[in-house]
Amino acid sequence: MTTQTGHTEAIAASRVIGTTVYNTQGDSIGSIEDVMLDKTSNGIMFAVIGFGGFLGIGEKYHAIPWASLDYDEARGGYVIPFSKEQLKAAPAHSINELAGADGESARDESYEYYKVAPYWH
Amino acid sequence: MTTQTGHTEAIAASRVIGTTVYNTQGDSIGSIEDVMLDKTSNGIMFAVIGFGGFLGIGEKYHAIPWASLDYDEARGGYVIPFSKEQLKAAPAHSINELAGADGESARDESYEYYKVAPYWH
Repeated sequence: MTTQTGHTEAIAASRVIGTTVYNTQGDSIGSIEDVMLDKTSNGIMFAVIGFGGFLGIGEKYHAIPWASLDYDEARGGYVIPFSKEQLKAAPAHSINELAGADGESARDESYEYYKVAPYWH
Repeated sequence: MTTQTGHTEAIAASRVIGTTVYNTQGDSIGSIEDVMLDKTSNGIMFAVIGFGGFLGIGEKYHAIPWASLDYDEARGGYVIPFSKEQLKAAPAHSINELAGADGESARDESYEYYKVAPYWH
């Protein structure tokens, strides 16, 4: 998600929410449920991808580093550079485990699992 | 928005959107319309506060640095450290001027006007 020019672009959180997410095999794995923001810094903590469950009951969520989302114009959704197998074994959480103080440990676990460099160091 | 402990907390963008915003005089000046995210870095570019207009027609928006929002439990809204007069003279934009590539100049103008240290340097 970097540009050659050094310029940046803004995207509204409300537009990100609801966008479909695909894995590297091209399978739709869910959609962006929310974006978690850091209360104490200027950082985007992670995107929340919802998958499984039925009508919100028993639904589980993955915390995905913002930098791992790559928008694919052709598909009209985000592609994340992780395979089906990686995502199957990834940390999964209830929505409550991703907000407030618990969000920090979910974030740390996510960046470690997906081997994404922490933005907060 | 810093803590003593070095720990952080997550807040969902969907919870931030819609929250009332007050100025230093305690007047409600509008509400958080959206949060603009940086496509090319991990940064929260700014919060978008909507004010004026009628049913969305002719509505204007301020870009407010994320670090300037302070949640006030008692009021149930964000307080920003700017006076009525400062906000009246502040840069105002249409919603289109805050998204995409235009978002960058709105951001730069906002941080300069409110004298908030850029997060991107």
